[in-house]
Amino acid sequence: MFLILTLSILFSIVAYYLTLRLLPNFTKIFIDAGLSGVDQCKPNPQPIPEATGVISSSICLITLFLFIPVPFLHHFSQEPQNFPNHELASLTSALLSICCMMLLGLADDVLNLRWRHKLVLPTVSALPLLVVYYVTYNNTTVIVPWPLRPILGHGISLGPLYYVYMGMMVVFCTNAINIYAGINGLEVGQSLVIAASILLFNLIELSGGCWQAHLFSFYILAPFLATSLALFHYNRYPARMFVGDTFCYFAGMTFSVVGILGHFSKTMMLFFLPQIFNFVFSLPQLFHLVPCPRHRLPRYSKEKDTVDMSLSIFKKQELSELGSLILRIFRTVGLVHVKEFSKDGEAYIECSNFTLIVLILKLFGPMHERTLTYSLILLQIASSCLAFFIRYGLVRIFYEV
Amino acid sequence: MFLILTLSILFSIVAYYLTLRLLPNFTKIFIDAGLSGVDQCKPNPQPIPEATGVISSSICLITLFLFIPVPFLHHFSQEPQNFPNHELASLTSALLSICCMMLLGLADDVLNLRWRHKLVLPTVSALPLLVVYYVTYNNTTVIVPWPLRPILGHGISLGPLYYVYMGMMVVFCTNAINIYAGINGLEVGQSLVIAASILLFNLIELSGGCWQAHLFSFYILAPFLATSLALFHYNRYPARMFVGDTFCYFAGMTFSVVGILGHFSKTMMLFFLPQIFNFVFSLPQLFHLVPCPRHRLPRYSKEKDTVDMSLSIFKKQELSELGSLILRIFRTVGLVHVKEFSKDGEAYIECSNFTLIVLILKLFGPMHERTLTYSLILLQIASSCLAFFIRYGLVRIFYEV
Repeated sequence: MFLILTLSILFSIVAYYLTLRLLPNFTKIFIDAGLSGVDQCKPNPQPIPEATGVISSSICLITLFLFIPVPFLHHFSQEPQNFPNHELASLTSALLSICCMMLLGLADDVLNLRWRHKLVLPTVSALPLLVVYYVTYNNTTVIVPWPLRPILGHGISLGPLYYVYMGMMVVFCTNAINIYAGINGLEVGQSLVIAASILLFNLIELSGGCWQAHLFSFYILAPFLATSLALFHYNRYPARMFVGDTFCYFAGMTFSVVGILGHFSKTMMLFFLPQIFNFVFSLPQLFHLVPCPRHRLPRYSKEKDTVDMSLSIFKKQELSELGSLILRIFRTVGLVHVKEFSKDGEAYIECSNFTLIVLILKLFGPMHERTLTYSLILLQIASSCLAFFIRYGLVRIFYEV
Repeated sequence: MFLILTLSILFSIVAYYLTLRLLPNFTKIFIDAGLSGVDQCKPNPQPIPEATGVISSSICLITLFLFIPVPFLHHFSQEPQNFPNHELASLTSALLSICCMMLLGLADDVLNLRWRHKLVLPTVSALPLLVVYYVTYNNTTVIVPWPLRPILGHGISLGPLYYVYMGMMVVFCTNAINIYAGINGLEVGQSLVIAASILLFNLIELSGGCWQAHLFSFYILAPFLATSLALFHYNRYPARMFVGDTFCYFAGMTFSVVGILGHFSKTMMLFFLPQIFNFVFSLPQLFHLVPCPRHRLPRYSKEKDTVDMSLSIFKKQELSELGSLILRIFRTVGLVHVKEFSKDGEAYIECSNFTLIVLILKLFGPMHERTLTYSLILLQIASSCLAFFIRYGLVRIFYEV
């Protein structure tokens, strides 16, 4: 085990320096290929390369390719019939799902696919994972917390529903990171915190009974953390590179893979608290119950070099009854800014957009983009601490240890 | 076995119709994304989408994802410890190599990577395949033909050299298809003939001792043949789509994968005779021993709507001694057209380009592009017949059966 851990860390360090060194070489290639965008929140916008996440993810993938034999080193000297082929199959299927998601992410970055593709693509990529889970492990039993056991028994076998749950988790993870984005360094920053939290959790659990699953998760996530850290170096404020959908999909799929094959998908979701909040908070706009502008990025003020909350402005009559109710509730609990006004005799409403980023700006007022990113990353760290408290504190109350 | 064959054919038929139906939907998306090119050999050149091979390959990959459980259906009712996890690992690693090659092919199409990447990328993609070959099979012994056995023995274990050989085969297969291209339908056409030949070979060998390896190859290649056939529908003369490097890489990697994991890599190379000839013939220009123009496509004559051989024109003094010798030899055996002339008092040489396409045009004169493609596909079919003769006729003389 220590050999695997050491080698994993060693591989990751090499991957970190390689990514740090190689990324700038691709700037020109990306811009020449038309894969570039302009940062709207800068005093002097310059075109910077987009979708560079594909480079860091590729380096991570190649590192993992080279790592494939390592977990099996001590088996080479043993009898071939004792070789843990099911572990090898798990590892290759995990990499297959990740690689497929990267392929589809890159296709999305290049081709600008439609919304419905964003639901179909992760499902497709998760297929090999779910199929291999089915043929190798196929444990779909969920342990019931003790207060419910008199009704439901000790465990419920969810059967096919468990696969639906895992598929939905993959769709959620990939998209949750993608929609909680838009300011320099946030996509990578949040992924770094989540990855570090899971790694810490894995390290704690290495002394437990399921250490093999946590070791597996560790050696997948270590190079992910390393290459993403190098990417963060270029993506943090002021961004010299954008990471693209490829990175968000890649990160989401990597987390799903370790959650599913490491058998800690519920704990993993605890590390996604800000993403879950942002996703639920966004739903009224995503489903167009409240009018949703094309972009919901913070608004940049060139004079003060700060960002402020962005607004959605629409005619009052456009709002449905349900939309109006949601707006009232959200206003009451202080989640959104709402102002009514009339122009040319018509009643208008302006409300702040339904994202966590804009909520922070509503609560604390305009701030520098760098401050905003680091505040959100701090929030992510705080919620990881909460997650650990829930996992090791509260859970003991409901499940015997 | 018959269930697997039937399901494989059924899946492939569905994949064929799906590809045929979906491909036109992407035309606009590709052109909007700037992935389009102009066909130089047409009277009225129009921009047509490029790199559409990524769609057909993705459908093929998804079909294979869904097919993963099929070969293991009869194991589900048996004891879990008898489950052939090593076969599952082979299948997922095969798909991983193919998927990774597609990812890198798409990256190449979008980013226009450099020449050296074209050697590195296939090697990287082949890694999971070679690693899994190493941990599961690791047979590196080559059987020696009997005339050499008194010297070399019955078999030689090549050890690491065998892995170098497999890696080189992957690099060769992916690039050989890519450089034997440039006229409508040739990339896909040649791949179809090779795939059909290997499928026929697999069907013959299904009755032999290694039927499992050939069944494996069959169910990987059947959806490949189906989706490529649908792609050919749009890529044949007059092309409404270009297939891109993605397709060439994808095809080459698929062939390598079945050759390596099906343990018939030498037989497979027999189906690549035109590609091997074209590659060796191209070497003097690829290594710049003879000056190589930027493009070596046939020259289009708008008046006659035919294509003719393209020429490389250069000053005589630019040619090295070695280049001069090669040119003399090639001219003597009739492989190239060479003419010397002088302009402004300087001696110039014009020679036809060193590709199989141009050689056909030299031998048979200018012809319509459609005729040229079908001639080359016929040549591919003829050489497959020769390959079968060598495999089942000549080989018996050197190896006892």
